[in-house]
Amino acid sequence: MSDTAIMTLKTMLANLDDAKKYQSLRDVMETLPAPDLAAVFEDLPPEKLPVLFRLCPKDLAAEIFAELTPETQQNLIDGLTDKELKAVVDELFVDDATDLVEEMPASVVKRILAQADPATRRMINELLKYPEDSAGGVMTTEFMELRPDMTVTQAMDAIRANGIDKETINNCYVTDKDRTLIGVVSLRALVLEKDPKRTIRDLMDANVVSVSTTTDQEDVSQLFEKYGFLAIPVVDAEKRLVGIVTIDDAISILQDEASEDFAKMNAIGPSDKPYFKQSMWDLYKSRAPWLVFLMISATFSSLVIRGYESALAAVTVLTAYIPMLTDAGGNAGSQSTSTIIRGMAVGDIKPHDLPRILWRECRVALLCGLTLAVCNFGKLLIFDRVSAPVALVVCLTLMCTVLLSQLIGGLLPVLAEKLKIDPAVMASPLITTIVDTTTLLVYFNIAKAVLKI
Amino acid sequence: MSDTAIMTLKTMLANLDDAKKYQSLRDVMETLPAPDLAAVFEDLPPEKLPVLFRLCPKDLAAEIFAELTPETQQNLIDGLTDKELKAVVDELFVDDATDLVEEMPASVVKRILAQADPATRRMINELLKYPEDSAGGVMTTEFMELRPDMTVTQAMDAIRANGIDKETINNCYVTDKDRTLIGVVSLRALVLEKDPKRTIRDLMDANVVSVSTTTDQEDVSQLFEKYGFLAIPVVDAEKRLVGIVTIDDAISILQDEASEDFAKMNAIGPSDKPYFKQSMWDLYKSRAPWLVFLMISATFSSLVIRGYESALAAVTVLTAYIPMLTDAGGNAGSQSTSTIIRGMAVGDIKPHDLPRILWRECRVALLCGLTLAVCNFGKLLIFDRVSAPVALVVCLTLMCTVLLSQLIGGLLPVLAEKLKIDPAVMASPLITTIVDTTTLLVYFNIAKAVLKI
Repeated sequence: MSDTAIMTLKTMLANLDDAKKYQSLRDVMETLPAPDLAAVFEDLPPEKLPVLFRLCPKDLAAEIFAELTPETQQNLIDGLTDKELKAVVDELFVDDATDLVEEMPASVVKRILAQADPATRRMINELLKYPEDSAGGVMTTEFMELRPDMTVTQAMDAIRANGIDKETINNCYVTDKDRTLIGVVSLRALVLEKDPKRTIRDLMDANVVSVSTTTDQEDVSQLFEKYGFLAIPVVDAEKRLVGIVTIDDAISILQDEASEDFAKMNAIGPSDKPYFKQSMWDLYKSRAPWLVFLMISATFSSLVIRGYESALAAVTVLTAYIPMLTDAGGNAGSQSTSTIIRGMAVGDIKPHDLPRILWRECRVALLCGLTLAVCNFGKLLIFDRVSAPVALVVCLTLMCTVLLSQLIGGLLPVLAEKLKIDPAVMASPLITTIVDTTTLLVYFNIAKAVLKI
Repeated sequence: MSDTAIMTLKTMLANLDDAKKYQSLRDVMETLPAPDLAAVFEDLPPEKLPVLFRLCPKDLAAEIFAELTPETQQNLIDGLTDKELKAVVDELFVDDATDLVEEMPASVVKRILAQADPATRRMINELLKYPEDSAGGVMTTEFMELRPDMTVTQAMDAIRANGIDKETINNCYVTDKDRTLIGVVSLRALVLEKDPKRTIRDLMDANVVSVSTTTDQEDVSQLFEKYGFLAIPVVDAEKRLVGIVTIDDAISILQDEASEDFAKMNAIGPSDKPYFKQSMWDLYKSRAPWLVFLMISATFSSLVIRGYESALAAVTVLTAYIPMLTDAGGNAGSQSTSTIIRGMAVGDIKPHDLPRILWRECRVALLCGLTLAVCNFGKLLIFDRVSAPVALVVCLTLMCTVLLSQLIGGLLPVLAEKLKIDPAVMASPLITTIVDTTTLLVYFNIAKAVLKI
């Protein structure tokens, strides 16, 4: 249904100059969710943005605005009057307004802050103090606060009086006089409570999980996943409640972190833009440096081969198995690396598990290596018709390389974590390069020993 | 704080035989969130499970139970009396009960269904009809339903009367007489509404986004991410409301799908168990088949090399750059593949974008290839001191291989999607193997042409 509405909307936009269509445009827009409308806005030429934006009711306009990319937000702001800008900023949730201030160039920021009302401006400035990727940087200060000695009736009255501006009222946070967080109570519990005289202290859950303003956003979003919360309170060093992180932000963080890990594990530099929004230069910047770096690292494998050129010249068939062996090592290595990286990302594996990891990887690598060696030995003798000693060399190398690769693959991400380097950069491409050199060294030395060359 | 509580709990468990500790144990347990307690349960010997479980209050017990792994659930069920089992099953949300029935062996399922009350049994059987990874398979039937002609007061009374058993009441769904879904209203809107006489029809959002029972769970969870919902209603073919999917399930799905893609992209078979819960056999099974398959695919690269053995023998230095060239191709290929796979997973890229993808990949590949070639040409002449024609061969190959790899890398996942194969299996390892052969063919042909061998 919303797909047809989007189509209708796009057709109408094609003839936006026809003034009589404005009312129908507004009607269509009201049936669409803000993220869909935002997608339509992204495709509009900058000069048409304010026209369409003015047609939206105030709260929908703010919702759409929060969903736009920074480029489109800036284009839109440039086309709005000060009064219109003020309306948008006042309607935005303060965490979205802060994100906006963080993304815009200085001149636009000045205009935004000049239009924001003093309370909003204070909250924005407060939030700007925290690092962007900390709990303080992603939280909102618009939460619902209750006192422990309120009755259910008083609490519901407080919510009715103040709830409208809050980002969520599904969870309300209980604080004592100096704003220390002492509990949480859900709107559900308040609504379902049969005795209106009961106090919040009776009803609240005093074992409330909170994070500090400095907690990393990734750790915060993992708590959402683990405990199934809809919001998590954020406290300062004195345990005073200063904000909450809501689940919609947590989901974005989880997805962004997963995308980031994907990119790093495939030798791509960071980018927070969707594929088609990236310019050629963006794509180039994110790919070329890694390719150059990995190419230079591959120098070692060339050096090893050149060092054993005479051995290769003596038994030229050895060359034929170089790609197979290095690939097997690379694949085995990235299997363990990626398992460990993902395990650490979702919290199943901790750095102090290293000895257990190596012991497991060692055993599974022996099993895998043996399987590969046996399969390959048969194939070499029957199909490739190489001599038994050469087959032996290839298969012994295969076993050693799988073992070494999976051990290195298990070790590297843990080592990276301990050295405070992001484990994901240690993944597939880098391990492939490291494993290549190891594999070739093992290969040529086994060949020299077995074939006596 | 909860970490110290877990430590205390573990110390107490060490002396569980000391009967006087039971009351304190219960006190400590009540301060801990269910997921933390579940983690403690996982580490207990099976015979101690029921003892500790019996100490938990009924609702906490059900919450812990839902968080346990299937193995531990089964161990625990084996130690419970029928009456205790009944208490657990009745207290579980029906979607968790259904998951349980899906995971347990037949004999245990029989016991569970015998203990469930008739209404629960009916709901479980209803949910079992849907495929496990469809919206029907992950939804719960315990949602709050309202009628459009109710006033706010009547709606709040209905919620107070029936809300306690519902998985969430933060969103209530409005249906007409034949149970067709016609709108959604949030508890927030009901609570904040100043006029108690207003009807639900007035207050509800009639443009409600819903999914069908057959919608893939991955698509459902993407809607949560896109629209920021807390729950999504599920309708049958006649648009009748049959259930809802809640955000906690959506987060698990998103994380599981990301883990699955990670695994596939690194040539690891599927596993839904955490690393340390997997047996040697699990790990072996998930890794060895892929390694064997990729090893066999690498046969093509061996064949190519053997076919050009005489050329290699003539200019032995060419061998030294084989790993560097195949790695560069593999890295370039996995950069584009993973970009496209992730883009499709988060919904930024659709299969019909293929021509645009290839055009972008082509341009960025030329830029990357040129950069690599220029860097490498300098390195080859200055550091490796190879002859200019050899350097030319290596660098031309580098350009061609990056171009081909990024085109293949852009093409494969889209092709896979069109053929209804999971794009993630096309990723890094497979593309590496494919690209290896291409690279070698290009390399030797360029070498033959330039060096006249």
